[in-house]
Amino acid sequence: MGMAPGFLCLGLDSEAQKLPKGQTQLSFNQAIVEATADLAAAYKLNSAFYEAQGAKGWEAMKKTIAFIHQKSPDTKVIWDAKRGDIGNTSQQYARAAFEELKADAITLNPYMGRDALQPFLDYKAKTCYILCRTSNPGAKDFQDELYLKVAQKVAQEWNQNKNCGLVVGATYPEELKKVREAAPDLPLLVPGAGTQRGELTKVLEYGRDRRGQGLLINVSRSVIFASNGKDFAQAAREKIQLWLHQRPAG
Amino acid sequence: MGMAPGFLCLGLDSEAQKLPKGQTQLSFNQAIVEATADLAAAYKLNSAFYEAQGAKGWEAMKKTIAFIHQKSPDTKVIWDAKRGDIGNTSQQYARAAFEELKADAITLNPYMGRDALQPFLDYKAKTCYILCRTSNPGAKDFQDELYLKVAQKVAQEWNQNKNCGLVVGATYPEELKKVREAAPDLPLLVPGAGTQRGELTKVLEYGRDRRGQGLLINVSRSVIFASNGKDFAQAAREKIQLWLHQRPAG
Repeated sequence: MGMAPGFLCLGLDSEAQKLPKGQTQLSFNQAIVEATADLAAAYKLNSAFYEAQGAKGWEAMKKTIAFIHQKSPDTKVIWDAKRGDIGNTSQQYARAAFEELKADAITLNPYMGRDALQPFLDYKAKTCYILCRTSNPGAKDFQDELYLKVAQKVAQEWNQNKNCGLVVGATYPEELKKVREAAPDLPLLVPGAGTQRGELTKVLEYGRDRRGQGLLINVSRSVIFASNGKDFAQAAREKIQLWLHQRPAG
Repeated sequence: MGMAPGFLCLGLDSEAQKLPKGQTQLSFNQAIVEATADLAAAYKLNSAFYEAQGAKGWEAMKKTIAFIHQKSPDTKVIWDAKRGDIGNTSQQYARAAFEELKADAITLNPYMGRDALQPFLDYKAKTCYILCRTSNPGAKDFQDELYLKVAQKVAQEWNQNKNCGLVVGATYPEELKKVREAAPDLPLLVPGAGTQRGELTKVLEYGRDRRGQGLLINVSRSVIFASNGKDFAQAAREKIQLWLHQRPAG
């Protein structure tokens, strides 16, 4: 079972140490976007991979977002930053996300509660994907007793501007099912289907909303680093096409 | 009741829009550090205020950290970033914190669990302050049932390299007392004593460890923006001196 193109989010986790020879983060991202723009419903930039390169990395992140918007104006760009802080600080993070970087969406951490996220939610035209059940093994440390409460609060209280979504890992399909029940109308961002080997069939079955939509499945490393040679962009495109028809091996 | 100099952490929340005329984030921070280095036990840079300025802000943050290390080699610099992500991403954030920015400590968000924070904890010479009970009103949304579990897990399981601390807001003194009981030996970073009007006397009573130490009380805006004129650095110094003798009014 493949996934429809409208569900695919490509994660540009463009770790500097893994780039093909001669590529910068920006040139690599541009080539990947050129080769995949007609197949990806969204792109996601994980801030960590750029922050590790300092100001230069920040600039590459900003220019990548501008390039995607120019190349493919309808494609949404998610800044995967997992931010959240007290109000006046979150205002500054929201400014970084939506005015400095000009991202269309952000990932947020709910631990500090609603007022910590309100400055982001106040940007009505932007989407806020709030961590609910994450894809990593340590998710169980604190989320077992919390993820459904997060889903309920976001769906029932925080979504007043109709701009909230939830992050639910593909590695926890049963929890994904419960989250979808608790939040029938929220868009879901689902990482962990690639390298982390989440269960794609169940994600497609459980994750879609009542209209069969509202789902972004993120794949990153398994696609963008499909080849380390000069054909890296074409290899990424071919890997996505495999995803769209059947699940690739790795 | 004042606080001993060893407890004072000065937060360089140097919001660009609030700087005195003619100052950049870097020149402002340098002047504040020049005027306060003998009084501050630590400095804390909240990343949001720099990220909002893009690559330029990142560079100002990095150069401020280098300036503090040069001016006052024994003074610790905390990167207040509240990060936390899946393992390979957290590795990149840790690299940003400790190798790119060269901070001595970081604040982290525990929501994603231990494996999300392990790449930071692996830097044995660095300190990891993990959010426990935050100072904002929304802390109650999810932390009521969680903060003591976080304190216990960090104290008993995550502190194998003896480099963990906890963040507990000055605005919740009773919870601070319980955290200190659950984590008798962990250093605590306590924000919210300034503009957020936390209770300083109780923080000093409840927050110190068994040796009467292990406590950093952060003040930010109420000190660094004490004056908007040319005397801003001297005014910050005088505001700190008030803190060290008795609680100032605002």
